[in-house]
Amino acid sequence: MPSPYLLFLGDTTEPGYAKTAFGLRDWARDRCVGEFVLPGATVTTGLPQLTPAQAWTDGARALVVGVANSGGFIAESWIPALEEALEAGLDIISGMHARLTDISALVYRAEQLGRQLIDVRTPPPDIPIASGRKRSGKRLLTVGTDCALGKKYSALVISRALRERGISADFRATGQTGIIIAGAGIPMDSVVSDFAAGAAEMLTPDAAEDHWDVIEGQGSLLHPSYAAVSLALLHGSQPDVIVVCHEAGRERILGHEEFRLPSIDETIAVNLLLGRRTNPAIRCGGVCLNTSSLSEAEANALVAAEEARLGIAVADPMRGGPALDRLIDSCLSA
Amino acid sequence: MPSPYLLFLGDTTEPGYAKTAFGLRDWARDRCVGEFVLPGATVTTGLPQLTPAQAWTDGARALVVGVANSGGFIAESWIPALEEALEAGLDIISGMHARLTDISALVYRAEQLGRQLIDVRTPPPDIPIASGRKRSGKRLLTVGTDCALGKKYSALVISRALRERGISADFRATGQTGIIIAGAGIPMDSVVSDFAAGAAEMLTPDAAEDHWDVIEGQGSLLHPSYAAVSLALLHGSQPDVIVVCHEAGRERILGHEEFRLPSIDETIAVNLLLGRRTNPAIRCGGVCLNTSSLSEAEANALVAAEEARLGIAVADPMRGGPALDRLIDSCLSA
Repeated sequence: MPSPYLLFLGDTTEPGYAKTAFGLRDWARDRCVGEFVLPGATVTTGLPQLTPAQAWTDGARALVVGVANSGGFIAESWIPALEEALEAGLDIISGMHARLTDISALVYRAEQLGRQLIDVRTPPPDIPIASGRKRSGKRLLTVGTDCALGKKYSALVISRALRERGISADFRATGQTGIIIAGAGIPMDSVVSDFAAGAAEMLTPDAAEDHWDVIEGQGSLLHPSYAAVSLALLHGSQPDVIVVCHEAGRERILGHEEFRLPSIDETIAVNLLLGRRTNPAIRCGGVCLNTSSLSEAEANALVAAEEARLGIAVADPMRGGPALDRLIDSCLSA
Repeated sequence: MPSPYLLFLGDTTEPGYAKTAFGLRDWARDRCVGEFVLPGATVTTGLPQLTPAQAWTDGARALVVGVANSGGFIAESWIPALEEALEAGLDIISGMHARLTDISALVYRAEQLGRQLIDVRTPPPDIPIASGRKRSGKRLLTVGTDCALGKKYSALVISRALRERGISADFRATGQTGIIIAGAGIPMDSVVSDFAAGAAEMLTPDAAEDHWDVIEGQGSLLHPSYAAVSLALLHGSQPDVIVVCHEAGRERILGHEEFRLPSIDETIAVNLLLGRRTNPAIRCGGVCLNTSSLSEAEANALVAAEEARLGIAVADPMRGGPALDRLIDSCLSA
């Protein structure tokens, strides 16, 4: 994929929908030269705000659509900005459901200018129906109480922490941002539903007995729109260990305010209940709490309180420290 | 769709995989002139065995691929038979995942001869992400302990029984066979997984408060391959009533012998647990027992025993009688 990147935020006002841009800033910072926003946007990555022409001068070679809105559509109002990027010399990378290559204006300009339009939310061909067969190696899956609260970051931190301990571990990306970060993966939400569990099996093949696949979770089993994706991933990845991810203070489902957030306890219980179908030995390794809205003192207090209440390891993976070490220990304990 | 039909069984030896042919024989008998089998097939619908040329003479205008194998593939060995059908004057209707229009030999012959290739397993365009919004009207969903054991037949019988009582009711098809029978529906297992719950919402729109949508279930929440489809359908159809379908005597998952069948009790519990997310008032209306392998006396004894054991209405919908009346009463009781 061409890089470095200019991160396009469109006119986004909801930080939860800019997670592709944040993910690349945080996990591929050396490949990001700046951000490009439209009037009306209130979300920022904190990177330099650049026009496509300025970004090209600063070394950028591709614009990445950094937004992951509900439905994955490319807004009509973004097209002139995307054309401007092509004209400035940038290729375009998108992980939206809507495909760049289906937008005739972009296809026309890209062809004229010799630029690439790269849609990363494209499942591989020939995904099999899931077999349910037990595979060798160890698997950890991050699951959540909702979307957009830390399942990808948690998986990235856990896979890095395992490697720092000298353990063979792969981060397995299941969404657009993870795939751009890792350079590989399967966009689970884009797979035809009959084959979705099979895609998860394909993503985490047989491995050495002491190898860990750390799999990026998707959605939530208790989400009114996306639970099917979560269940396919749970069944197909047949995790030995789940880690439940939750954002401190979130009480309603993002974008579906009429739905209360499930509790951490409920989320553990329903994942173990259903996960047991393909891995009877499934267990919960702990909880990753996203405490980004809290001070360090508040965060530490909440982590300690939740650990006492739940009786399992709890950590904010982004804050690290001894809590994260205990969480990793808990995931590894047989 | 062109009809009457010649039902193509290929070289199928597993009755569970010939459910499209059986479904059309049982629910669209007046549109079926016969069956067409290849050497090696042991499954039969009991209809006259005809060549495509004989079927044309008897009035057939389309060959329907009557097989629903795991993965939905069109076997290489079937192609000459399908070409023979085109040559005899028949169009071809298929509900497989693999598309007739992707098989160049068939496309070439069909164009040459002026025949149609009709792929019914095609989701509608512009399916929205599920909103989770409560819709007006009543909904009943058949759910199962496995695939291919009576969810479609049960929904067809229940919708007919409701109409016979003067109640407004629609059968809502979610699979290939149901769609050919009903002439409408959405093939749930072919929808991209992020949109699958949205497809179920689209299938069962707002309706009059006393109208019932009776929705054909798919797979099983405890199936190692297809549970995602079942969960999307459960969340998106937000049923007021579920009816659990089970085949007497089946102990292992069809085609996945290493997985034991979940019990009826487990199946009720997990469907109510997850279904409550989009309809807190969800309840189980009863159990449809497929007793086709039993004598009438054995079937009646089993239905009575299961009714006593479970404490809810149990009936074999294909045998009808007072047990079915009690099941319908139970589904309608508020």
